[in-house]
Amino acid sequence: MFEIIKFPAASTYSDLCERPSLESRSMDSLIDAIYSQVKQHGDQALIDYTKQFENRDITEITYSDSEISELALQTDTELQEAIRVAYANIYAFHKSQVLVEKRIETSPGVVCWQKSTPIDKIGIYIPGGTAPLFSTILMLAIPAQIVGCKEVILCTPGMHPALFFAAQLCGVTKMCKIGGAQAIAALALGTASVPPVYKIFGPGNQYVTAAKMEANRMGIAIDMPAGPSEVAIFADSSANPVYVAADLLSQAEHGNDSQVILISTDEEIILQTITEIKNQLETLPRKDYALKSLDYSKFILVNQEKEAIDILNTYAAEHLILACENPEQFADAIQHAGSIFLGHYTPEAAGDYASGTNHTLPTNGFAHAYSGVNLDSFVKKITLQSITKEGLKKLGKSIVIMAEAESLQAHANAVKFRMD
Amino acid sequence: MFEIIKFPAASTYSDLCERPSLESRSMDSLIDAIYSQVKQHGDQALIDYTKQFENRDITEITYSDSEISELALQTDTELQEAIRVAYANIYAFHKSQVLVEKRIETSPGVVCWQKSTPIDKIGIYIPGGTAPLFSTILMLAIPAQIVGCKEVILCTPGMHPALFFAAQLCGVTKMCKIGGAQAIAALALGTASVPPVYKIFGPGNQYVTAAKMEANRMGIAIDMPAGPSEVAIFADSSANPVYVAADLLSQAEHGNDSQVILISTDEEIILQTITEIKNQLETLPRKDYALKSLDYSKFILVNQEKEAIDILNTYAAEHLILACENPEQFADAIQHAGSIFLGHYTPEAAGDYASGTNHTLPTNGFAHAYSGVNLDSFVKKITLQSITKEGLKKLGKSIVIMAEAESLQAHANAVKFRMD
Repeated sequence: MFEIIKFPAASTYSDLCERPSLESRSMDSLIDAIYSQVKQHGDQALIDYTKQFENRDITEITYSDSEISELALQTDTELQEAIRVAYANIYAFHKSQVLVEKRIETSPGVVCWQKSTPIDKIGIYIPGGTAPLFSTILMLAIPAQIVGCKEVILCTPGMHPALFFAAQLCGVTKMCKIGGAQAIAALALGTASVPPVYKIFGPGNQYVTAAKMEANRMGIAIDMPAGPSEVAIFADSSANPVYVAADLLSQAEHGNDSQVILISTDEEIILQTITEIKNQLETLPRKDYALKSLDYSKFILVNQEKEAIDILNTYAAEHLILACENPEQFADAIQHAGSIFLGHYTPEAAGDYASGTNHTLPTNGFAHAYSGVNLDSFVKKITLQSITKEGLKKLGKSIVIMAEAESLQAHANAVKFRMD
Repeated sequence: MFEIIKFPAASTYSDLCERPSLESRSMDSLIDAIYSQVKQHGDQALIDYTKQFENRDITEITYSDSEISELALQTDTELQEAIRVAYANIYAFHKSQVLVEKRIETSPGVVCWQKSTPIDKIGIYIPGGTAPLFSTILMLAIPAQIVGCKEVILCTPGMHPALFFAAQLCGVTKMCKIGGAQAIAALALGTASVPPVYKIFGPGNQYVTAAKMEANRMGIAIDMPAGPSEVAIFADSSANPVYVAADLLSQAEHGNDSQVILISTDEEIILQTITEIKNQLETLPRKDYALKSLDYSKFILVNQEKEAIDILNTYAAEHLILACENPEQFADAIQHAGSIFLGHYTPEAAGDYASGTNHTLPTNGFAHAYSGVNLDSFVKKITLQSITKEGLKKLGKSIVIMAEAESLQAHANAVKFRMD
């Protein structure tokens, strides 16, 4: 732990950026069994699994509206206010992402455009576990509310009042008491109480992840593939080691397998940050989690910013904090990351809760190909085209030639008959 | 065949819209074997499979630049010109989808925005088979060219000159002679000749589809889940049965399992269309394909447009043609579809080749959750945020309260330390 990797050669960047490997296949038979039971026995299977896996007795799958209201009201007033502040920022930023219709006349008389329509039914999973992630409800239900998803089904075994408060605030239409892989199976297959959905969002443990992959295999969309959370920080000599240490620890406290990386052009900053981590660790309630994930941590010293940029573009961090003097310029050079936090007063925690950006982001290098959750995740973009008789007359010849070259005569006919 | 379903009750819409079921699991062991061979033996496995599955002898995996140029030059001049026309339209429409940066100040001193960056390495698969789909190269390589994907690897067993012409025109960076599931495995795993990619696009048979699902399971993104191609047409009494029949046939000729649906408020139009289909079928080179897929066809008579809209929103067609008097108004009511063709002079064939919209679209009802391929498919949207010291001071309290309520003290500290 806390070993510093000094001036790594470019040829080692790939290895340096390797994540601990993920195992998913081993759970196939358990996940198959859960899907098959939920398919056969519906709600009863959910009730039985809840007893078997969580030792919770439930008789109803869904909360009634009055139960939700009562639980929501138990939320601390100060916390209610904080959630409202976060709500407003997340709403504003995601609302700005609404598609503006643009009609493009690609050729005379040929007009093409896109329209965006909501996914009618979505499922959101919020784990129980050690942290009641009501913030994730905001991140997933606010964009659904903006685009107007008709049904937003939230499954959570959690009982923290703020979960209910957030769900109500964001217009969740149904809240279910179930958790784990069985909750995902219910959202995928549907039961008497849980409607089947077209897309499933939300974090979870390895069973939940495997169950989401199975749903995906069945043709149900998912937010993105999952992996352990991670942060990378670039700090130059302008950085404050107290802040950098706090940012690294706020990622490390997430779970045993979180990964934190610090890259710096200044060895002193690295050394001071390590000292600060040790100090701050002492009073952390989740010290044990943080210690375990610090085992995966990396502290990298480089000669120049350019090297840091290359490593970071190879790594494709979920969260990237730029604790440096020229964060805008540095960010311009970053091609692969989930979310970027610029400057000394933009901690990851701000984006986790309240700046307005989404905190459901690609981990495990998936930022090379995947975006984080954003407004697009809740809609489909349908293309439309309208061609006039004259427009088709003009464009038709090209279509006929191409269709015939692809040996698709009926395609050619569809144009020819209209041109005659 | 050609049976008319008259005035179906709303309760039957779901069954009416059911697709023939897809089987994917059964190929698991073959796909596993192919992945494992390609992983172990790399290029040699590709050479061996090409002999075994396709009876083609290849010694090199990739085409040299001069081979590509020579083959491209063999493209008919008229066809070259047609491809250039299509290229310009597809380029114009996709270019219009480039993200315009918008900085949003969600709270005083808290600014959030998105930037779009290309996926560095993508793979495109174009099947050999009965139709040389050079048009699909345009659809997948033009947006990659617009956003600036660094490596665009095209795998195809096809040899039609237009494939090479289109690849060259669209800036494909490498062209490989391989096909089938082994080509997908090569793109996913990488070999000496084929670089591994972050996302795989393109159509294919059931083996290719299964291999893409396996890549997806490994964390490699894919364009979308696959299914048989399909068209739905709404025709009112203003429709021309000759055009409607030609449009239905241009879908039916794609393959044995294509699905075509005609919904009309006018029985006469349905009857005349059926007559026309029989006429036009006679001279079609791909009559056998069309006949088989007409087995899955449905002709539905409804009383009112409203019913047609409900059926079409349940069906979520890949292609939807609105052969009616008020197509704009009708399109406004459509919430789920891949691409919509408005009016009597907008055949599906136009969008398949040259109107400018993308023809890689969600089949099998996937349009309930998935968009067709568009410019977004080739980029990631990274979120960025920049907070001033004052901004954090103002927002900080809410973050601290939420973090502490989620029992994440280090998150709270990251803000507190900065506020002190």
